[in-house]
Amino acid sequence: MAHFCAINGEIMPADKGQIFINDIGLLRGYGLFDYCRTYGGRPFMHDLYLQRFERSAALMGIPFPFSKDAVWQQMDDLYQRTGIRDISFRLVLTGGYTPDGVTPAETPNLLIITEDIPYIAPEKFTQGIHIITDEYLRELPEIKSTNYVRLIMLRNQIKAAGAVDVLFHKDGLVSELSRSNLFLFHGNTLVTPEANILKGITRHVTLQLAKDIYKVEERPVAVEELWQADEVFTTGTTKRVMPITTIDGKPIANGKPGRHTLRLLGLFNEMTASLAATLPVS
Amino acid sequence: MAHFCAINGEIMPADKGQIFINDIGLLRGYGLFDYCRTYGGRPFMHDLYLQRFERSAALMGIPFPFSKDAVWQQMDDLYQRTGIRDISFRLVLTGGYTPDGVTPAETPNLLIITEDIPYIAPEKFTQGIHIITDEYLRELPEIKSTNYVRLIMLRNQIKAAGAVDVLFHKDGLVSELSRSNLFLFHGNTLVTPEANILKGITRHVTLQLAKDIYKVEERPVAVEELWQADEVFTTGTTKRVMPITTIDGKPIANGKPGRHTLRLLGLFNEMTASLAATLPVS
Repeated sequence: MAHFCAINGEIMPADKGQIFINDIGLLRGYGLFDYCRTYGGRPFMHDLYLQRFERSAALMGIPFPFSKDAVWQQMDDLYQRTGIRDISFRLVLTGGYTPDGVTPAETPNLLIITEDIPYIAPEKFTQGIHIITDEYLRELPEIKSTNYVRLIMLRNQIKAAGAVDVLFHKDGLVSELSRSNLFLFHGNTLVTPEANILKGITRHVTLQLAKDIYKVEERPVAVEELWQADEVFTTGTTKRVMPITTIDGKPIANGKPGRHTLRLLGLFNEMTASLAATLPVS
Repeated sequence: MAHFCAINGEIMPADKGQIFINDIGLLRGYGLFDYCRTYGGRPFMHDLYLQRFERSAALMGIPFPFSKDAVWQQMDDLYQRTGIRDISFRLVLTGGYTPDGVTPAETPNLLIITEDIPYIAPEKFTQGIHIITDEYLRELPEIKSTNYVRLIMLRNQIKAAGAVDVLFHKDGLVSELSRSNLFLFHGNTLVTPEANILKGITRHVTLQLAKDIYKVEERPVAVEELWQADEVFTTGTTKRVMPITTIDGKPIANGKPGRHTLRLLGLFNEMTASLAATLPVS
């Protein structure tokens, strides 16, 4: 559930938050977002998330007339008001109120919403998740745009397959899941696509954790490699480091989470658990 | 400018119209629209536009729990209140208020807005327009989705070229302009793409007007055919039948509107001028 929101700086309960209907994000899809969270009451890498948010805006051509500090100040105000130890922040930026139905405004609309962190059953981490594949490439893969129509149209197919997400591939190469990145282990080599993806913050952290332990390759990944891999996992803000044990109904290796994946999950959990001690109080 | 709106049936001045921020059209781009107009105070083909609107909803999986008559009744209420002889209607349908940020609601959100018809200088019809091309194919070309990010990102490039719109092509085939359909004349043969396009109502009417006069071919159209064509034009709800005289800075044939195009424009104008006499009063 959503708790509080700030609409262009004005704070109110999220269920009271409204925007005018000539918002160009609503009428023309000209909008982007980002999504981050706290661990142990501390923001997790919020500077990196805000950098990405600003970069998406630059790539899409939406003005970003805010300092990241000012955006963070709003987020922190909302966090304090929400009064829950761990929450997520949804940041949405649109091209503003269009004067003619198609031209962006000079001033964007900035929405910030505090939400409960989605619950993930603990056994998902110990048993792994099932996913399906779909031939698709996002229009603007480097931008965290609001276009999730493909995922939404696939939702019943995902559910019918007993899966929880979808892995996109195109021209024989895999790219990313609908809202998270993809990694494979071939032996001690960790492999992840580097092109045509949204570069996740959890992906970045995972690569940092892995680079001193494993050989790391950021490169194009063929669909066939999924079936040759010893381990497959995904990284994301809510999924953290999540083993993938079945793809399109076929088990990956022995169908159980791999030990390297679980090691990286353990390192990730250690890092987030230590946040309260290591990061400055917000 | 926008005049009045109906938000899920509630009528108000358009500048007071707001939706809650958990609308999934805003947050996830899960929305579609349609756009029609009146001529001489009479609705133009509104039954065909409403059919298309309903079809887009079916293709995108958004519920459409309304009769087309009930939607038209709301449009007519708004029209009467607007008190202007000729207006346009923007119909927007989104997947409703999402409970979790990604799942559509059971009930969609329906917005209807009355707007001024965009002004097009009369000399555009007698001199033709300039357009540019762009390699792109809409993700869901048969659906009038709200995704116009590509057009919006190209807007400065279009303007810098002295053009007014963009023609999309992919894999050597042209499809459509950003908001209108494409036609070519090779001699007395009228050619228009039939796949990977949004099938326009004005396109449909133009084909009806043309079929007794010209040979008509609905088929794939190669980019090279643009340079071999005797005439090129576009059809749309606001552009009607609009000659295209320059593409990417290169003139089509002698760079002047062609006589067949102007004949079809004349027939179209005759038809819309006779609407007041031929269609039932709304």
